[in-house]
Amino acid sequence: MKPENLSAIVDIEVPFHDVDMMTIVWHGHYCKYFEIARCALLTQFNYNYPQMRDSGYSWPIVDLRIRYVKPAYFGQILSVRATLVEWENRLKIEYLIFDKLSGQKLTKGYSIQVAVDMTTQQMCFESPKILFDKLGL
Amino acid sequence: MKPENLSAIVDIEVPFHDVDMMTIVWHGHYCKYFEIARCALLTQFNYNYPQMRDSGYSWPIVDLRIRYVKPAYFGQILSVRATLVEWENRLKIEYLIFDKLSGQKLTKGYSIQVAVDMTTQQMCFESPKILFDKLGL
Amino acid sequence: MKPENLSAIVDIEVPFHDVDMMTIVWHGHYCKYFEIARCALLTQFNYNYPQMRDSGYSWPIVDLRIRYVKPAYFGQILSVRATLVEWENRLKIEYLIFDKLSGQKLTKGYSIQVAVDMTTQQMCFESPKILFDKLGL
Amino acid sequence: MKPENLSAIVDIEVPFHDVDMMTIVWHGHYCKYFEIARCALLTQFNYNYPQMRDSGYSWPIVDLRIRYVKPAYFGQILSVRATLVEWENRLKIEYLIFDKLSGQKLTKGYSIQVAVDMTTQQMCFESPKILFDKLGL
Repeated sequence: MKPENLSAIVDIEVPFHDVDMMTIVWHGHYCKYFEIARCALLTQFNYNYPQMRDSGYSWPIVDLRIRYVKPAYFGQILSVRATLVEWENRLKIEYLIFDKLSGQKLTKGYSIQVAVDMTTQQMCFESPKILFDKLGL
Repeated sequence: MKPENLSAIVDIEVPFHDVDMMTIVWHGHYCKYFEIARCALLTQFNYNYPQMRDSGYSWPIVDLRIRYVKPAYFGQILSVRATLVEWENRLKIEYLIFDKLSGQKLTKGYSIQVAVDMTTQQMCFESPKILFDKLGL
Repeated sequence: MKPENLSAIVDIEVPFHDVDMMTIVWHGHYCKYFEIARCALLTQFNYNYPQMRDSGYSWPIVDLRIRYVKPAYFGQILSVRATLVEWENRLKIEYLIFDKLSGQKLTKGYSIQVAVDMTTQQMCFESPKILFDKLGL
Repeated sequence: MKPENLSAIVDIEVPFHDVDMMTIVWHGHYCKYFEIARCALLTQFNYNYPQMRDSGYSWPIVDLRIRYVKPAYFGQILSVRATLVEWENRLKIEYLIFDKLSGQKLTKGYSIQVAVDMTTQQMCFESPKILFDKLGL
């Protein structure tokens, strides 16, 4: 499997506690939806947060973008797709959220993570070998 | 200062993201308000979470009770008081939230924490010496 | 179906964003887990938050208790069971969280809600007729 | 006062519940920090969420960008500055988070909101007159 093809889809039912007084999902909660899909994606190549930590690298998010096309509501079933689009120097993942029933696009965005050596606390300007190993490259 | 007198008060302005579609503060967010006051209280005797961890004990919450007397709203200023009421075998803290302007009582509750030895992962049936030292007992 | 038998079970995989610096689920997030199970239970008799609102009653939580038996960790699969135990004067729901794989009990608790007439903002000392209708009583 | 000069600064002490298992503030919580500063800014010209709603317009966020320069830690005091940079067709607010003590820059970002007519649910391609009135233009 080439990394280009790596993606994961998770379904999330909007819980009551994610909805604000305008009766729509509060914009900040999409960070959680993205993350649940991102972790499902990272698990596919066995490099989720615990494995990152065990490999001596933390991978903090350094850039996040969210574009809100349509609001989401309490009880709605969201499908969240995370796709790996860059890995050589940093981990860039793109997200698309759509309504599971209608297929209508609701939200899109991306996150960028970089490796940080947990011993030196230095940011790596290239992804460490462990990532390539995990990706089978 | 005797531990009986130990209490802390913090003021919190209800943020937009804590209000639900019924236009009141979602009940689960009071755990955060309690915690902010609890940490202010623990800081008074220099035994907040980092000091707990450095002392070799985690102090997980094992019991939590919240009683909601009146709802709170976006922008309202809440005063949260945390009072230490037990320390010999466990740490019991009582909370009272009231409207800062009117003084009206909104919420009350308590939390109970027990020491867990981080080396053995065993729960302590008496509070460890470090707590008494911190409390000046 | 008698109300005594009403219960719902949902499975929740602990997300990264629910875990604190002690590497366990932060105690306040269990309010969310309880709520997801509670809403699944309310949906069984077609009286979830939107139906409550449409019926002219809000049902704020007035009392919440959580007892933490064992901690939960990132990626763990939790089964959350919500059971209706009182309905005549108030809605009392009990919760039990257990590890899905081992069956080990992790957390238990309850919530109590009372009907509030949304027109008068008065609390009802008996559950309104609509609840009994929904429960088929 | 010209809108170009409109900005607000709020101080936030990082609470325990915002810190993740990597012991840094979880990236999604910055949405909350931005919002607290944004609401302080909107209050300056008396057009915060309740006034928006009363004016017949909701102003959902349609675009959000966060760039993480340095991590933040439990107990750190953050200063969050929100500055109004666009208002004619949409509300664009820029954010800068810095460490209160050292002045070191930690995070920056922006949010974009557009007016939505709450009667027709149509997005407005120009900001409605009420915004200009509130801004004294």
